[in-house]
Order: sequence, then structure tokens, then C-alpha cells
Amino acid sequence: MKLTTRYPFSAAHRLHSNQLSEDANWAVYGRCNNPYGHGHNYWLEVTVAGEPDADTGMLVDRRQLDKCVSEEILSRVSHVNLNEQVEELKDLVPTTENVAYVFADWLKSGWGKHFKDGAVRFDRIRIYETRNNRFEIQANEVRQ
Amino acid sequence: MKLTTRYPFSAAHRLHSNQLSEDANWAVYGRCNNPYGHGHNYWLEVTVAGEPDADTGMLVDRRQLDKCVSEEILSRVSHVNLNEQVEELKDLVPTTENVAYVFADWLKSGWGKHFKDGAVRFDRIRIYETRNNRFEIQANEVRQ
Amino acid sequence: MKLTTRYPFSAAHRLHSNQLSEDANWAVYGRCNNPYGHGHNYWLEVTVAGEPDADTGMLVDRRQLDKCVSEEILSRVSHVNLNEQVEELKDLVPTTENVAYVFADWLKSGWGKHFKDGAVRFDRIRIYETRNNRFEIQANEVRQ
Amino acid sequence: MKLTTRYPFSAAHRLHSNQLSEDANWAVYGRCNNPYGHGHNYWLEVTVAGEPDADTGMLVDRRQLDKCVSEEILSRVSHVNLNEQVEELKDLVPTTENVAYVFADWLKSGWGKHFKDGAVRFDRIRIYETRNNRFEIQANEVRQ
Amino acid sequence: MKLTTRYPFSAAHRLHSNQLSEDANWAVYGRCNNPYGHGHNYWLEVTVAGEPDADTGMLVDRRQLDKCVSEEILSRVSHVNLNEQVEELKDLVPTTENVAYVFADWLKSGWGKHFKDGAVRFDRIRIYETRNNRFEIQANEVRQ
Amino acid sequence: MKLTTRYPFSAAHRLHSNQLSEDANWAVYGRCNNPYGHGHNYWLEVTVAGEPDADTGMLVDRRQLDKCVSEEILSRVSHVNLNEQVEELKDLVPTTENVAYVFADWLKSGWGKHFKDGAVRFDRIRIYETRNNRFEIQANEVRQ
Repeated sequence: MKLTTRYPFSAAHRLHSNQLSEDANWAVYGRCNNPYGHGHNYWLEVTVAGEPDADTGMLVDRRQLDKCVSEEILSRVSHVNLNEQVEELKDLVPTTENVAYVFADWLKSGWGKHFKDGAVRFDRIRIYETRNNRFEIQANEVRQ
Repeated sequence: MKLTTRYPFSAAHRLHSNQLSEDANWAVYGRCNNPYGHGHNYWLEVTVAGEPDADTGMLVDRRQLDKCVSEEILSRVSHVNLNEQVEELKDLVPTTENVAYVFADWLKSGWGKHFKDGAVRFDRIRIYETRNNRFEIQANEVRQ
Repeated sequence: MKLTTRYPFSAAHRLHSNQLSEDANWAVYGRCNNPYGHGHNYWLEVTVAGEPDADTGMLVDRRQLDKCVSEEILSRVSHVNLNEQVEELKDLVPTTENVAYVFADWLKSGWGKHFKDGAVRFDRIRIYETRNNRFEIQANEVRQ
Repeated sequence: MKLTTRYPFSAAHRLHSNQLSEDANWAVYGRCNNPYGHGHNYWLEVTVAGEPDADTGMLVDRRQLDKCVSEEILSRVSHVNLNEQVEELKDLVPTTENVAYVFADWLKSGWGKHFKDGAVRFDRIRIYETRNNRFEIQANEVRQ
Repeated sequence: MKLTTRYPFSAAHRLHSNQLSEDANWAVYGRCNNPYGHGHNYWLEVTVAGEPDADTGMLVDRRQLDKCVSEEILSRVSHVNLNEQVEELKDLVPTTENVAYVFADWLKSGWGKHFKDGAVRFDRIRIYETRNNRFEIQANEVRQ
Repeated sequence: MKLTTRYPFSAAHRLHSNQLSEDANWAVYGRCNNPYGHGHNYWLEVTVAGEPDADTGMLVDRRQLDKCVSEEILSRVSHVNLNEQVEELKDLVPTTENVAYVFADWLKSGWGKHFKDGAVRFDRIRIYETRNNRFEIQANEVRQ
């Protein structure tokens, strides 16, 4: 079975690619290319999979999951500028597509610190940039 | 194709495991272990799958589906105390994980009373405990 | 100007009036009269009014407001049984109407502990029992 | 990875099947069979799949996707009567099931006009008739 | 204090004024002037005001309120064409502004059938045409 | 009667007061004081009041209202950094309280360009910073 939990966070970003000319940046990103940046209230959804524990009836201890997501992801991106303050995004355009890959990678790398082998599995993340756009990546699509 | 319908219901529960000491219960469930119980407005989503009927253009008669969900699930849990008033949960901790297994089992067992063989299939249920937590189980994961 | 903040909390209750016969209780409250109780995910909205501070640009320090609402209201009702565990509701039917009066009274009585005279004013509370029912009371309608 | 975007549109329809008697129409569709029609605020969700472009960091140019959905679907159904003004629905009952097949077919047929081979793929559409009913069809379930 | 309850309903309409030329109709209403009509999922909010009853703790019996709204309003507009099937709208353009006046008038005229003098008062209605547009009218603004 | 319309916009900001020390800034604003800024998906609600026109049945031409809000407000703040790119906020901390005053002032000053005297009146604005915080100011509270 699966459990999905949802976390809000606010951050600033600017869409700008060093691989593209100024004109091309404007053509591709429009107002999102504004040099001063803009921002969003993002929603992060984390889905985990497994079987409930026979004694507790829980797939995962919710506070442990919250702690994991907070340490591995939210503490690095809440109230920050994604272009300037996130090491892994410095050479990437901080589109929500790239942000999703970075988050999924963080979660996958840090998972073992929080959960024992064979217990609950990380299954998928979704990021809502606005209510009308969401991006989703499966744990097995994480790069590298 | 698939159709998903959504149903609200309100119920009380207390998270407490007879397999655990008082201290362990408090450590695992926190305030949800309060002996007097607390409650939620749950949302149940039922997903069915199949092909629309050539004459009616409908995958399933919605009123028949509502009747099925109402009889098999909602009538047993709406405005009740899940610990005290649901036979199948008496020996289980009424976490939403366990509640989901019980609901899926009820729906699977009762399906034949409402729908003919080969017609619309029960595919999945999802239960939202709050807006930020949801649990999901596929029809083929039902225990028994 | 006004600022409204919203807080979720979960609790159990049973609608039952000692002033009414068993039959009348059932006639008035229906399934909400179930002796084992049921529960809700409530939303509490607190509205405050005043002028932003010239230096900080804030009508009220949000963390101070959260602390006030948490101490005066949420800590007393989150994950509890409203009939059994809230002194002020012991002789009242815990309808959301009565709950609203009790909350407004708590907030009004405790306000001075958190905010200096003349600064931000408590204006109104709203409680959502479900998405489709909400109750609202102005600060000046508080009883006693 | 996947990107889902959401579009609202309003339309009128009447559920009536020429294959059924007047009585059977009423029995199957109830008030939705009202000869004068009724209507909905629908939500259309379009999911696309692929890999983000290395230069732009985008799975798809959002404005190009909006243009595609607008030309292939929304311009044909926004503020129209689905029974009277949509050629492909003239011989079908405009249930949301049938509407979903027609939309998916339009999107699949028109995809090549907007996106080059091998780039982003059309994955799935979902249509919400109300907040409590949604229909979903995978790109590979499109008829014919 | 006040209680607000919310009711969804679906209907079709066409915005067209007999006082205006064809061209002016198109200029004013755009696609909403489409002769075949279109439709919406409306939300109606009804607000009532008064004091909770000392015995029941309720401002109003919720089932009585639902019955009142259903008989006076919903039964006349659910799944109908507002232009063709609502007597009071036949000589009016069925904008949500005019619909709000008609609803408020129905509620005010029918109130006495459902509630005794001096008990709960009708305070206000709000109609959401979409999530982004809502119209509101106080009981004392009802025409005639 | 009143009409309220809702508009989303995304922007970045940093909460920092030149009247306060570095330490006091951190104490008051916490992570919102991060020098690189962060951002939000704001919702702006504009409420107007008046009587529907007898011919059109409309309180206000919706496209005219959208144009007014777009020109007077949205075009100046959508996808911008509120600290750096909004003249009127340069000497103010861009809390949503101050933003609300600036918006209300823009709307009040620009109103006459869009609407004739005596027609529809500007009544109130509300800004949602997140789903759980909203700020509201009446037209008659506009400063200066």
C-alpha cells in the first residue's frame, strides 16, 4: 500500500539558462526570466510504499517521515533563493523539473539514515508549482 | 478507462495497540493515543475501471456505485467510533492503513451483489485522513 | 485592516442534550447522537484588526499570534473528546455553535496575556466543522 | 518524468441516448436527461511524459503545451453545448466517459502538429465533471 | 452569531439581452452569448443569523435548513436551463447577479413556511459561478 | 450587491526593515529575512459593489474589471521582486500588510480611468499570502 504526505514551502527562483542567449532566455522563459527573480508557494508530496507493521498498524512512523523530509529537503529550500542558495542547482536552471530531480536524489541518498533496509520504500515525489502545474518523478527515475 | 468518485464521512478513533506498553503507545502515537479518542472528516475515493457501455455511454451507473459504496462501507463507519463499533477493527489499531485494508476487503467481498461479472471492476481506494495525508490500496492488494 | 489566520485541529464529540429525552435527542441530532461519538477535522480562523506597526510593517507578530491561539485554544482541544475533556463544555452540548462561544471567550479572556492594550484587536472567529458548514462569531458577541 | 497541467472550461450537455426509450432514459440519467440541458465547470488535466531538455531544463515549453490544448480541445468545447455543437459527439451520449475518449483522440491526432517526434509524449487525460467525479484515460487506450 | 452552509448545483444558461442588438450582445457577453448555451457547477452559500437554542445548542436545525434551501431554491434550478425553465428569469438575463436577486427573493418569501417568527434570520446568500467569481447579496437588499 | 473576483500572481520578496538592527530583523522576521529573498503564489481578491445594469444584468463588465486590475496592479507585481522592482515599496517592508495598502491605493487612484462616476464602486481587497493567511482592507481605509 502507499502513503502520500504533503508539505508546503516557499522559495524564490529565476529561470535563466547560461546555455542560451539573452534573447533566447526571454523567448523561452518570458517574465520568469526577470533578473530580480520571483517566487512560489510550492507543495511537495512524498509517496512511500510498503506494508503496515503488524504491531503498530502503521506503514511508517509519520513523525520519522516528517523528520526525514524536513532534514533532507525542506531545511535546504524553505524561504531560500533556489538559484543562489542551493549548491546542486547552481549549474542547473531551477525549473521545477530540475528541482524535482534534485529533491528525489536528496531523498534517495538520505533514506538509509532514517529508515532501516527492507522497511518502507521511497516511491515517488510530486511538486506543485501552482495549483495548475505539477511535476512527478518515480524513485527509480532518479539520475546517476 | 477509470472513474473515481469521492465520499466524505466523519468518525472517531483512538490509536492504541494492545501489543505495546502504555509508554510505547504514547511514544508511537502521541496525542492520537488519548484514551477519550479524537476524530476526523475523512474522504474516501473509490476508483473503478472498465469500458463504457455502448448504449448508455457510462462506465457504471453512478447511483448504483453510490449505493454499493454506501451499503458496503459508509453505512458502517459514518458517525461511529471506529474502535468500538466496527467488528473488523476490534483487534486492529484503527490507523488509516488498517482502515484502508478493511474497506477494500468489504468492497471486494460485496462487489458481486451490486455488479454483474465482467462488468465494471473495482480498481483502488484512497482514504484522506486530512488534506495532507492519504493512503491508497489497489484491489489486488486486499488481504483475506 | 484585518488579518485572518487559519488553524486545523481534530477532535471527537457527541451531540446529546440532558434537557431532552432519548427520543428527542435522536430526532434532533440523528447519527450525531451516537453514544460512542464521532469526530471532525475542524478549521479555526482567527481574525484580528488594527494598523501595521510603522517599523515592522506588521499588524501583529505572526509567531506571537500563533502562540496565543495555540495556548488559549488549540492546546485544549487538539486530539481530545470535546464532551469529556473540556471543562467549559461539560454542561453544554458541544455543537459547533457552543464551541464557538467557548473559543471566543477563551481568546477574549487570554488576549491581555499576549498583546498590549491598544495594539492589535481580536475581531472574529470562524469554525469550519466540514467544508460545507461554518460558524462565525464577532468578538463583541462573546457571552458574559 | 511527468508534468500535469490543469485547464477549466464551462459547457452545457444533456444525457440522452437514442438507443433507449424515453422511460429508460429517465431511469438511467434522472435529472441529467432534462431536455433543456444543464451544465458544468469541468477541469481538464493533461499529463505529458519525457525527459527535460538539457539546455532549458524543461520537459516541454509550457506555452506550446497550452497552445496545443487550447487549439485541439478547449477552443472546440469552451462555452458550447456538447450535444449540439461538437461534431464527434453528435452520435454519442455526451457522458464524461465519451467526452474523455473524444478529447484523447483529438489530442493524439493533433499532437504531431505541435511537438516533434521523439520529444515529449502525451500520457493521459483526466476530466473532473465535479469535484467529486473524475474520469481518466491513458493515451494508449484511445479508440481506433 | 452566524452559520453558513454551502450547496452545489449544476445548471445551463445563455447570456443574451433582448434590450441589446445581436452585435451588442456579442460585444458584452462574448462566448457566453452562444445561442446553444453553456453551463456551470455553481455553489450556493446561505448564511443565517441568530442565537443558539438553550436546549439544543443549535442556531437552526440543519436538516430543516437543508429542506428549506432545497424546496425554495435547489429543486427549481438543479439540472435545469435557467433561461428556459425558470419563470422568474424569463424576462431577465440570467447573469449570476440576477440569479442572486431571484434566489434571495425566493428564500425571503418562503422563509416563514420553514421557520417561526423571531427564530433564526436569513442574513445573506453568496453564489460562486466559478472558483474565481462570487456574488453576494444581503437579505435586506432583496428587491420589491 | 457585491462581486468578488480572484487573481493569482507570483512574486519574490524579503522582509527586512531599515529601522531595525540585523539582530532585530532576524528576531522579527526569521527565515523571511533571508537576504536572497523567497517568494509566494499570492491570490488577490477584488470586491466591487453596486447595482446590476438594467439592460445587461451585470454589476460590472467582467472584462473591464479584469483589465483594470491587470493594468493597475498585476502588471506591476506579477513575476517581480517586490523589494527591488516596485517603486512604492522601496521605503517600506514588503509585508503583505504594506502590499495591501499599496494595491488598494493603486486601485483607488486608477479607478476613474476605467469606470465612470457613480457606476460600480471599489469596495475591498484581500490578499492571500498562503492558504492560511489573508489580509483585507476596505476601500475607505486607503491611506493619504
